[in-house]
Amino acid sequence: MVDGMHKGHGRSNAKVGAGHVVETQQFDRETIEKLFKLADSLEGVREESLKGKIMAALFYEPSTRTRLSFESAMLHLGGSVITMENGSESSSATKGETLEDSTRVVNHYADVIVMRHPEAGASARAAAVSKVPVINAGDGAGQHPTQSLLDLYTIRRELGRTDDIRIAFVGDLKYGRAARSLGYLLAKFKNIHMTFVSSEALKMGDDIKTYLKKHKVTYDETEKFEDAMHKCDVMYQTRIQKERFASQEEYQKFKGVYIINRKLADSMKKGAIIIHPLPRVGEITPEVDDSPHAVYFKQVGYGLLIRMALLKTILGGRKMK
Amino acid sequence: MVDGMHKGHGRSNAKVGAGHVVETQQFDRETIEKLFKLADSLEGVREESLKGKIMAALFYEPSTRTRLSFESAMLHLGGSVITMENGSESSSATKGETLEDSTRVVNHYADVIVMRHPEAGASARAAAVSKVPVINAGDGAGQHPTQSLLDLYTIRRELGRTDDIRIAFVGDLKYGRAARSLGYLLAKFKNIHMTFVSSEALKMGDDIKTYLKKHKVTYDETEKFEDAMHKCDVMYQTRIQKERFASQEEYQKFKGVYIINRKLADSMKKGAIIIHPLPRVGEITPEVDDSPHAVYFKQVGYGLLIRMALLKTILGGRKMK
Amino acid sequence: MVDGMHKGHGRSNAKVGAGHVVETQQFDRETIEKLFKLADSLEGVREESLKGKIMAALFYEPSTRTRLSFESAMLHLGGSVITMENGSESSSATKGETLEDSTRVVNHYADVIVMRHPEAGASARAAAVSKVPVINAGDGAGQHPTQSLLDLYTIRRELGRTDDIRIAFVGDLKYGRAARSLGYLLAKFKNIHMTFVSSEALKMGDDIKTYLKKHKVTYDETEKFEDAMHKCDVMYQTRIQKERFASQEEYQKFKGVYIINRKLADSMKKGAIIIHPLPRVGEITPEVDDSPHAVYFKQVGYGLLIRMALLKTILGGRKMK
Repeated sequence: MVDGMHKGHGRSNAKVGAGHVVETQQFDRETIEKLFKLADSLEGVREESLKGKIMAALFYEPSTRTRLSFESAMLHLGGSVITMENGSESSSATKGETLEDSTRVVNHYADVIVMRHPEAGASARAAAVSKVPVINAGDGAGQHPTQSLLDLYTIRRELGRTDDIRIAFVGDLKYGRAARSLGYLLAKFKNIHMTFVSSEALKMGDDIKTYLKKHKVTYDETEKFEDAMHKCDVMYQTRIQKERFASQEEYQKFKGVYIINRKLADSMKKGAIIIHPLPRVGEITPEVDDSPHAVYFKQVGYGLLIRMALLKTILGGRKMK
Repeated sequence: MVDGMHKGHGRSNAKVGAGHVVETQQFDRETIEKLFKLADSLEGVREESLKGKIMAALFYEPSTRTRLSFESAMLHLGGSVITMENGSESSSATKGETLEDSTRVVNHYADVIVMRHPEAGASARAAAVSKVPVINAGDGAGQHPTQSLLDLYTIRRELGRTDDIRIAFVGDLKYGRAARSLGYLLAKFKNIHMTFVSSEALKMGDDIKTYLKKHKVTYDETEKFEDAMHKCDVMYQTRIQKERFASQEEYQKFKGVYIINRKLADSMKKGAIIIHPLPRVGEITPEVDDSPHAVYFKQVGYGLLIRMALLKTILGGRKMK
Repeated sequence: MVDGMHKGHGRSNAKVGAGHVVETQQFDRETIEKLFKLADSLEGVREESLKGKIMAALFYEPSTRTRLSFESAMLHLGGSVITMENGSESSSATKGETLEDSTRVVNHYADVIVMRHPEAGASARAAAVSKVPVINAGDGAGQHPTQSLLDLYTIRRELGRTDDIRIAFVGDLKYGRAARSLGYLLAKFKNIHMTFVSSEALKMGDDIKTYLKKHKVTYDETEKFEDAMHKCDVMYQTRIQKERFASQEEYQKFKGVYIINRKLADSMKKGAIIIHPLPRVGEITPEVDDSPHAVYFKQVGYGLLIRMALLKTILGGRKMK
């Protein structure tokens, strides 16, 4: 299965060796389905299958949620964790060590590296020199493949399928990594229609649209939020990221445009779901939380299962010495 | 026993569900005695009773001592730990996530949450939405219930009783959370007399005095430190907290008023003890450390036992899946 | 073997009790050789010999590499870890607690303390009051004994011997702790010749030269880098530490003087090695990395083995309660 992860679709990278999880495109459908079945089987499980194995969480920018999720996943499987929480201020980085050298060093300390980095391509650079698998836990404007996998897994768990999906993406589609990455991943499935709901200034980029056309995914663009809510199977709400805007004024302008309130949630089709990569800061109002459509907190639990499944797949094959 | 923790005395909170440890008042005498007996039995123990269980230490303000104490307690019982060390600067909090949402997320990662927060009531807010037990590890001007429990446990271990106690509280009684909390806890026992020794500006608040009267605890207030030292069974010294004063000058004024030196320590009754929540910064001079009355470092070990006993009580009932 | 660690050579400290690892000079040759044999036997090993044991990593200044190395070593042996990552900004230190008090507190939480501190002598101060072993993981301008041990172990593994060594030290010999410490350690072995290559302003101090004369180690000083490269068995390259210079200009002046490039590496004797405490920031060019002489990344792995061997020696003797 580890091999199956690296058949290299999309802009996959020849330098990426066995076991690395660098970008969403590297997964083929068969591998994804195996991974999801494994995730299903790990629900509620605490085991010792990774006893003696060590995961290094190397976070060059803070991301508490993602870090705790990976660490918890490793501990659920009986493994151990070493952590660098804010690597950009770490002694090695401050002293001027390259990412490649840091990776070569940590290779001696851990069996797998989970890496978060503010620069796109950082994980691929690390993977290119690493002797142990590198899992990309978000690299700036680049990718966050385990987020896409858990988004898709949430859809599969809640809708019971990964084909025949009408999905709407809302919010910051220009800068938001999560929506873009899931777009790439869904393109591997059948009969997918995407609706992009955004302000003109935050529209989905042309690169992904070209990719979708090539992979026979249909899409439309609209500013009509209500209409998209009625029609979709999946509403992917995202946070307008304050840190992406030059001024507080500009941020405020876009922040309030697309908010899901209870009335809008209630207008959704039966069985339709609202997902969100979290944290939310107002783009879904609290009274939506107990709507049957709201699955964004269950999504966190699905994310734990996906990360457990990935760690188990990557590390389980190697025997404890 | 977990149930016994929540009979709700004092200003206990109806929203607080099973297993949470939110405030000192929630414990009844029977529960406390069971907890202390369990703590006794854990002295010197390393076990695997919590193997497979995960504790999340969510610290929204740094408190190294308290964090390491809880983490060590969990590890002594064979459990594992995930840690957020400075949550107020964490990515989620910075991005504007509510404490409630963060709690809902971490519910998927851990079996128990130990929470430190700068705002009073934060733990109760977290407990109100949490599906796993929340232990308050200090919430600003609010409470620090495990500190009170370990203070009382120290008294019980060193004096052999929790009734018939003459205790003097010294230092910053106005802002100091530790002395106030222990006051609430002692009110559950018999024949307690409290002496409050402080400068006029740092006097114990009226709220707790009203509480004591209601619970038949006698007390007096004095500025005569030496006299209190001679008479008490327990001298509870506290640090004058620099961070509570507007100016360095004002802090310096109060800092040097009540210092326990060796001569004062030697004037205590046989068997009387000096306790302190630590860190100390001069209010007990180093030559007191090897006095038979000085138990403030032993107190740290008692604290570990109390936290082990709490974690074992809260988590031990649930079986490993 | 723990006893053998404390026969006290050089400026060893009478206050240092059993099990502490405070300075390079405390180790005698027999102890070092036992430690190296144990390290040999731990290659590729994951075991549970330290199950139930807790290591506290108390870092009063950040040092990600050293911290992760010790933590990984402890986890490889089945032990657990509690961590204070940036202690100088920790709550206890900020509130004014002494290092001695902090040590007394952590004594209740851990079976061994690994301490990094910006002040020389800090580890010895901690060891003087600690009831559990303290391992010095670098104390400012003082020592970093486990670095010296791993440097020597690297030499032993790569050259097959610790006597009859011609070693050149290059770079910042005045401020660089690593080169100085290894100098002290090598003085315990036979037929050692040292060459100090540095700019006039960064020359090796007189204290160590006096020590070497007393211990019958020959040495010479030169600015001729190429010549030293040809003749040595071991080239110890070190980083010019930016943080030691008053101005950026002065740092730049010294930074570029002694750089090992591929041509220089190729001029070395057969079997000769280049070692480096890392991180490097340009003083060894990347094309040297796959030279047979380059062992600085293998050195990281040897460091893990040395720290495993130390922890096992120190903690292995005590039984799990």
